[in-house]
Amino acid sequence: MQKIDHIGIAVKNLASSILLFEKLLNRSCYKIETVESEAVKTAFFALGNDKLELLESTDPDGIIAKYIAKHGEGVHHIALAVTDIEAEMKRLAEDGFQLLQDRPRPGADHKLVCFLHPKSTNGVLIELCMEKVDG
Amino acid sequence: MQKIDHIGIAVKNLASSILLFEKLLNRSCYKIETVESEAVKTAFFALGNDKLELLESTDPDGIIAKYIAKHGEGVHHIALAVTDIEAEMKRLAEDGFQLLQDRPRPGADHKLVCFLHPKSTNGVLIELCMEKVDG
Repeated sequence: MQKIDHIGIAVKNLASSILLFEKLLNRSCYKIETVESEAVKTAFFALGNDKLELLESTDPDGIIAKYIAKHGEGVHHIALAVTDIEAEMKRLAEDGFQLLQDRPRPGADHKLVCFLHPKSTNGVLIELCMEKVDG
Repeated sequence: MQKIDHIGIAVKNLASSILLFEKLLNRSCYKIETVESEAVKTAFFALGNDKLELLESTDPDGIIAKYIAKHGEGVHHIALAVTDIEAEMKRLAEDGFQLLQDRPRPGADHKLVCFLHPKSTNGVLIELCMEKVDG
């Protein structure tokens, strides 16, 4: 684990939440990106070396829509940057953490990601993420 | 706003959660501190320039105990570092955000803090925090 890469926040309406967070953070959103495989539209804000990611579901049955139906809007996950995602997945599985994927999959912001089940992490959904290597 | 200072995580049992996060993050907790005025015992982990703060209530009627009773364990707040907390409080109040304190109050980790009501911030409890100046 190197650092917090970003905090993911589930929102009902990305457009209005972008305006809200622009006021809150006193800066502009720098990127909007749809991740089809996750059924989310995301918006990123930079805060020093950290990022906030707003997530709106593009599908009424998508994971973020279901999250909001159950918990309301709010913090959805914490993403931790790792340098070798497969090695970290192996280490954590051996240490008893429950991985939600068998292998890393593509996420937003040019990353490979894997989630840990919040049952094994004090109710916090943890995302491991690593910069994708092209080529 | 400069950066994410820390993410606060509500836990039932600080001792067992410290062991859990030591395994998860693959590093040791570097500080344990009780904040009497907030009825919390806290434990900090460093992640690059970021921090995770675990929070256990020291009072069955304390704010963290009530949070866990309602929501379960999980992310409780996001703390954003600011250089002038009073100026940020004024700016945010004028922009329609609801402050939970009229003036900054002492928090853990040698900080002055003020919280924003999550109703005005997409369900995310935001803490503004500024390093205390001694003297």
